[in-house]
Amino acid sequence: MTRPLDETHDASARSWVTSANRPGTDFPLQNLPLGVFCRRGSGNIGRIGVAIGDEILDLCALAEADALGGIGPEVAGALRAATLNELMALGRPGARAVRRAAFALLREGSAVRSHAAGHLVPAVEAECLLPASVGDYTDFYASIHHATNVGRMFRPDNPLLPNYKWVPIGYHGRASSVIASGTGVLRPIGQTKEDAAPAPAVGPSRSLDYECEVGAWVGKGNLLGSTVPIAEARDHLFGLCLVNDWSARDLQRWEYQPLGPFLAKNFGTTVSPWVVTQDALEPFRVPRSPRPEGDPEPLPYLDGREDRVSGGYGITLEVYLRSAVMRDGGLAPMRLTSAGFGDMYWTMAQLLTHHAGNGCNLRPGDLLASGTVSGAEKSERGCLLELTARGTEPLTLPTGESRRFLEDGDEVILRGRCEREGFAGIGFGECRGIVLPAQMLPG
Amino acid sequence: MTRPLDETHDASARSWVTSANRPGTDFPLQNLPLGVFCRRGSGNIGRIGVAIGDEILDLCALAEADALGGIGPEVAGALRAATLNELMALGRPGARAVRRAAFALLREGSAVRSHAAGHLVPAVEAECLLPASVGDYTDFYASIHHATNVGRMFRPDNPLLPNYKWVPIGYHGRASSVIASGTGVLRPIGQTKEDAAPAPAVGPSRSLDYECEVGAWVGKGNLLGSTVPIAEARDHLFGLCLVNDWSARDLQRWEYQPLGPFLAKNFGTTVSPWVVTQDALEPFRVPRSPRPEGDPEPLPYLDGREDRVSGGYGITLEVYLRSAVMRDGGLAPMRLTSAGFGDMYWTMAQLLTHHAGNGCNLRPGDLLASGTVSGAEKSERGCLLELTARGTEPLTLPTGESRRFLEDGDEVILRGRCEREGFAGIGFGECRGIVLPAQMLPG
Repeated sequence: MTRPLDETHDASARSWVTSANRPGTDFPLQNLPLGVFCRRGSGNIGRIGVAIGDEILDLCALAEADALGGIGPEVAGALRAATLNELMALGRPGARAVRRAAFALLREGSAVRSHAAGHLVPAVEAECLLPASVGDYTDFYASIHHATNVGRMFRPDNPLLPNYKWVPIGYHGRASSVIASGTGVLRPIGQTKEDAAPAPAVGPSRSLDYECEVGAWVGKGNLLGSTVPIAEARDHLFGLCLVNDWSARDLQRWEYQPLGPFLAKNFGTTVSPWVVTQDALEPFRVPRSPRPEGDPEPLPYLDGREDRVSGGYGITLEVYLRSAVMRDGGLAPMRLTSAGFGDMYWTMAQLLTHHAGNGCNLRPGDLLASGTVSGAEKSERGCLLELTARGTEPLTLPTGESRRFLEDGDEVILRGRCEREGFAGIGFGECRGIVLPAQMLPG
Repeated sequence: MTRPLDETHDASARSWVTSANRPGTDFPLQNLPLGVFCRRGSGNIGRIGVAIGDEILDLCALAEADALGGIGPEVAGALRAATLNELMALGRPGARAVRRAAFALLREGSAVRSHAAGHLVPAVEAECLLPASVGDYTDFYASIHHATNVGRMFRPDNPLLPNYKWVPIGYHGRASSVIASGTGVLRPIGQTKEDAAPAPAVGPSRSLDYECEVGAWVGKGNLLGSTVPIAEARDHLFGLCLVNDWSARDLQRWEYQPLGPFLAKNFGTTVSPWVVTQDALEPFRVPRSPRPEGDPEPLPYLDGREDRVSGGYGITLEVYLRSAVMRDGGLAPMRLTSAGFGDMYWTMAQLLTHHAGNGCNLRPGDLLASGTVSGAEKSERGCLLELTARGTEPLTLPTGESRRFLEDGDEVILRGRCEREGFAGIGFGECRGIVLPAQMLPG
């Protein structure tokens, strides 16, 4: 099943879009992530594009002009849609056809470079929208470090529940409130209850948190009643993005038993706009994280040879924070943590195969998120709940401000990058959101 | 906010569709529920229709022919769609316009009866589809009897968690696997673990259950970041249906902590095809169920005067079971239980207002389900987990077969009716599903 690397992975290939050759850019010629954008001020009608350096190539316009060689009419039709769902439905072959056509067009010395004339939009003049219409959004819990850290706060003697090492724990999130990077997030209002209080109070959350996660967009779907064998799971994963699963910890603590998080999570989930495709990620596949001695091996339906050898993705994730005071003072965002996605207890393929294991149908454009990505060290904790130990070890910002949880005006920025010797590094772009003050009291 | 009763509620009004005047029909002239159907064998393109007696009036055809007086171009456009989502977005006024036009057309002595010529389809020649494209499906837990019965099995000393009387507990379900009545339901496969076993096993669920619930289709939506005051909640509820939230109890038991049910529920959720509108239900509104002495009153955002006086719906729900042996022997389905929906701890308006209380956006066509509807008595328990006390008190069927949980070939039928002195009784039609054998092992 392994896809061979091809010329689109050649580290020496350069683009005539010069910003794509800048060292450290997230979007060199070897990345070519897909997204949906509109030109600022042109209304909200999305067009499919590909990020290249500091520009966006308008694939919709090129498909309309029949100027993308070799993609075929089906892919061309999908590129004229307002979301990526149709292209996602075509699975990896559709994404690969687009990747090859864009690579041929954008590489230095391209014979068809002229086709791009008038169809390159500076990213600063564009607004990125959601890449797909999300049918269902599922959030997992695939970092054992996160599960253990959080579990320890609630159950000191028994931090990890007995099912964790067998079941890729997940739950359904809210599709309607998945929002594009850059959208402001209102501090939610809800019920909270202090242990000693006789009754809950209603008010703005005082424990607003981010969660740094990786998301997978489902490509090819499966019908209700059918499953996806682990060996085929990767063919159903169209590409990856970054996800900030904003969480109101005080609401969560009071509401979550016995049926799981609800209003603590469904007020907003931010995704990065660019879908980094499976083919772009091919060079950065890494072995599945080995299980500690004594842990059970995955059950057979979750254990595939290819997944064992290369089911992980070597993505380094970073979380940055910038307060309103920092922004006013012209200070750059402060990096809070960094963690490796290769370290997860469950792979994305395992999550997808488990999800469909009971016959649940996944559809093109569904979003699966990994759960908070945390490592073993304090510097690798992917949410404030863990990083400040439930607020007991506040952070200090460069302004001298301290943070236990997020304050109004705080901006959270997630970044992700893949690097490997001999290959051009690629990135995910930013997943960004700013906390806005609570606006209204219900009722 | 109360809508006055009007001539469409007049119990003496009769239809020229004679089956609509038959005593006990679910679909008399006073009901006029909306749904989406196709003629058998004509492909799966849905058309909006209204149920009348044993027939379906094709509203799409009538809208195309401009033959529904007084509905206006916006409603007419919505009726030409393949789902009810557009009409739902128009809220109660849109539904009311359709109700009045259909009533005028279908009543005995109608001057415009001829408009219906060629547009009445016998229900037996039609297949009912999902009434709407479900954006998000949310399941609640609004029966305190159900919550207590189930909680007692898992926590004998402390059946009801401390948040129950304050928070309308809910969680996100799976939208992709919401299916129309009549669709077969494959027994799901998944991980289960016996307490004494060292490791989980993978196999078909051995504790497959139904849950008898009432669903509410969201009409008018609310934007992300906005809330819905309790006094306005009913205007966001387009209409009601029946829901069977199939549940694999053994999968649920092993997977559900700490994030709630997932694969135990998302393999299929059956809804009845007809949306009984708010206007049709108007005569059957009842006071919100009084809280037992000592229970807290709802928090202010969940406490509305109108909701207190008439937030409940006087619906009697029934669950029927027919095994394959009963079907082969020509036996009628056996009634297992009957419960009153007026008895719920939380009203539909409270559920919706709570859901949007943190700014979560609800969209037209979203589905909210009540959770299992159970009463205080054993004869009122809305799922087998409760009815057979987790399988320890099996049922006996008329064939002598016994049931702890559902067997392959079992057919579960939910029915619901509203009756009130001086008014024509109305019903919901059936919510029906048959259990099919597990078909494949994952991986």
